[in-house]
Amino acid sequence: MAPLVPSNNTARQYSRTHAERFRHDLHELLRIPSISTDPAYAGEVQRAAAWLAEHLRNLGAANVQVLPTAGHPIVYGEWLGAGAKRPTLLIYGHYDVVPAASEDGWDTPPFEPTERDGQIYARGACDDKGQMFVHFKAFESYMKTNGEAPVNLKFFLEGEEEIGSPNLAPFLRAHLDMLNADLCVISDSTMRVIEEPVILHSLRGMANMEIHIQGPSDDLHSGLWGGAVHNPALALVEILSRLHTPDHSVAVPGFYDDVVPLTPVEREELAKSAITDEQLRQTTHIPATWGEAAYSIRERVSARPTLEINGLLSGWTGAGPKTIIPAKSMAKISCRLVGNQNPEKIYRQVKQYIESITPTSVTVQVQLLNTSEPALIDYTIPEMQAAARAYERAWGAKPIFGRGGGSIPVVAEIFNLMRIPVVMMGYGLDDDGFHGANEHLSIEMFHRGIETAIVYLEEVAQIPRRSDTTAKATV
Amino acid sequence: MAPLVPSNNTARQYSRTHAERFRHDLHELLRIPSISTDPAYAGEVQRAAAWLAEHLRNLGAANVQVLPTAGHPIVYGEWLGAGAKRPTLLIYGHYDVVPAASEDGWDTPPFEPTERDGQIYARGACDDKGQMFVHFKAFESYMKTNGEAPVNLKFFLEGEEEIGSPNLAPFLRAHLDMLNADLCVISDSTMRVIEEPVILHSLRGMANMEIHIQGPSDDLHSGLWGGAVHNPALALVEILSRLHTPDHSVAVPGFYDDVVPLTPVEREELAKSAITDEQLRQTTHIPATWGEAAYSIRERVSARPTLEINGLLSGWTGAGPKTIIPAKSMAKISCRLVGNQNPEKIYRQVKQYIESITPTSVTVQVQLLNTSEPALIDYTIPEMQAAARAYERAWGAKPIFGRGGGSIPVVAEIFNLMRIPVVMMGYGLDDDGFHGANEHLSIEMFHRGIETAIVYLEEVAQIPRRSDTTAKATV
Repeated sequence: MAPLVPSNNTARQYSRTHAERFRHDLHELLRIPSISTDPAYAGEVQRAAAWLAEHLRNLGAANVQVLPTAGHPIVYGEWLGAGAKRPTLLIYGHYDVVPAASEDGWDTPPFEPTERDGQIYARGACDDKGQMFVHFKAFESYMKTNGEAPVNLKFFLEGEEEIGSPNLAPFLRAHLDMLNADLCVISDSTMRVIEEPVILHSLRGMANMEIHIQGPSDDLHSGLWGGAVHNPALALVEILSRLHTPDHSVAVPGFYDDVVPLTPVEREELAKSAITDEQLRQTTHIPATWGEAAYSIRERVSARPTLEINGLLSGWTGAGPKTIIPAKSMAKISCRLVGNQNPEKIYRQVKQYIESITPTSVTVQVQLLNTSEPALIDYTIPEMQAAARAYERAWGAKPIFGRGGGSIPVVAEIFNLMRIPVVMMGYGLDDDGFHGANEHLSIEMFHRGIETAIVYLEEVAQIPRRSDTTAKATV
Repeated sequence: MAPLVPSNNTARQYSRTHAERFRHDLHELLRIPSISTDPAYAGEVQRAAAWLAEHLRNLGAANVQVLPTAGHPIVYGEWLGAGAKRPTLLIYGHYDVVPAASEDGWDTPPFEPTERDGQIYARGACDDKGQMFVHFKAFESYMKTNGEAPVNLKFFLEGEEEIGSPNLAPFLRAHLDMLNADLCVISDSTMRVIEEPVILHSLRGMANMEIHIQGPSDDLHSGLWGGAVHNPALALVEILSRLHTPDHSVAVPGFYDDVVPLTPVEREELAKSAITDEQLRQTTHIPATWGEAAYSIRERVSARPTLEINGLLSGWTGAGPKTIIPAKSMAKISCRLVGNQNPEKIYRQVKQYIESITPTSVTVQVQLLNTSEPALIDYTIPEMQAAARAYERAWGAKPIFGRGGGSIPVVAEIFNLMRIPVVMMGYGLDDDGFHGANEHLSIEMFHRGIETAIVYLEEVAQIPRRSDTTAKATV
């Protein structure tokens, strides 16, 4: 990795001289166990929201509010001093975290941030407090030096990302005017190595379903009735085994109809972040890789839709034998979807196909649990290219335009509801241990992230403002 | 049903005049919650054993003992007053029961026997205290009238049948001399309707197995890796879907190699207890029947081997979605086996086949949980024909020689270890609710059972004693 690029930008200089204090501020935020998944921590989530609002006010943001939702609150703050001629950047982040307990294998307490070996160890260090905080400190660096930022800023901070953002879309719909912006930046993603920063321009959507098979009204004695009753576990197995073709693609008719094909240029771009068979085996400890042979591993895990079995349950699963024909069986399945697949349409196709292959000897129910839309954003647009230049100038490496295999519902929601580009500029590493024990963030990446965010504001300032209608048409 | 047949047999007369007191005695036994499956009831199992020993002593049995095993005790008692020229009949029964709680839907407390609508309601009324007690009262009826029984009797009462008789075979092996007999009778089975008593001459054996599939070392995020990793739940499903052929027979190579084919005469006998599609649907509430089209429903559930999935488990099975690729998956499977299949051989065949169809992208383990041997006993032998005459004379109906679909390990163990015929004379009804709520036994069938058991002793007395070697050769 190249050393930090010398810069005349006073904001970047400021960020370097205040680096230690920036981390100190982050540690304060990391100390708050704002666990959104556990109702017992609702007060801590609230405390984190108040802390962020206070911090934004101190940095010079206006109209700072902790806005209630049906769940945890949303923190909003804005700085519109760049004026109407300059673009407005919406900065989304989430301040909630998943649970963490020392017993899970943490070397230091998860809510007592610890710096060692060039890393900050704490729950939320990477996902997403640390990455979100980069934008706070970029804002501070401008305000404390120039007294202004190059573009207008709106901070939009969620406290429910880890529970699936149940109140986000309603909030967005109710606050479109307040949140109105030209583009959105989200830093909640990762790269393989520090030399290969990634700008995500695509995320997979999702359709989560349950399949329930019912045979007899009650569990039957397999000795009394075995041989003459279609075992619902077997029926489920027979159905599920027909959801994929022998070449490992999804067998549901119409499943691929709306998939936007990869162009040769896109495949070339994805090849820059290629994963080898060996790398995948080492990371996951699987005996051999699997999937659609016509696509590279990177393509399979990001640009191709999937159908996974997430859970199976039937009959007796405790110790020892129990010779029953189970009355019923259940599977949880989820489809990861890519642009332009529609989750509800996919659900209907899966449901119809499963119903069509279910024998008359059992009954089947296919239920939709929830969905999220895929997002596929053109990476040649100026907002994306500005991000690429910012990484080159401040991070010190040319970024890859990547596709994320996961789903960040907020991306598709902002993209679809606000009709603005969403630029995903990640500052973490794939192995930073988000959601696991010893989650951490590289101190170097935290500071390079702040400088990249600083430079991104400069770059965004150069983008001519589109009219709302133009933006809607071109994005 | 014909009225009770007039009889000169004084024992039968005695059983009629003492009918009410017989049931009173049975109620005492039924009040003891001798639940073998729950260690908290070990004292009650012990209490039931002591009660039975005391009762046997009072009836005139000698050498009565409560014999310890590694688990619950075995009760033994004998009456050898008929002398060496007469056959010795070993009477097997079990005095343990499965759990029962009022909350499960009992109309009256399960351990407070209640007579209503011609039935005795209590846990164990049918399985097996009530049926076993028939033989106590047949013995009593002879002893209190003639002062002797027509044949020598050995009572052999187990307290662990409901937990799979783990200590039975070792006990048998250690007490072959004590238990030595010419034939064995077991009353622990049922008939469809009272007019159609059944003598079972065949039971299915069993091989219980578990299949474990391992993919990645830990659950994976389906967004990060979905598409490039063989989902272990899918791999399991693919394997299990190949254990049956499209015609619903078992696809494991060699599975049917040792099956003794049904003769036309045997198929005719089985047809006497035919089950219609409609009857099976009504009993089990399945939408449609299933199985090998070349065999009748009765044949499928008794004379044909099966492979059932008893349980499935993988990944997330709680409420809502969890978008993981599970690290592993598990299935419990059991084969019901018929003569002359060998459970260990079947296990090896299943294991080998599963290993051969498991892809290299996952690893598989097939484990044997336990086995029991099938039993197929010629029903033309005198011991079986004597039972048929006993039903005709005392029950009032010609019995069917039937095949049981379930496994009663003791039958194969006595048959194999002692080399004597085992005659299964059932006195319950298929819908007596054994193992369920409101288990019951028909009062009429209890009394007819006692008279049938009385007459059976007369009939057995007519059978010339075989030498031990002859018995071993002909059975």
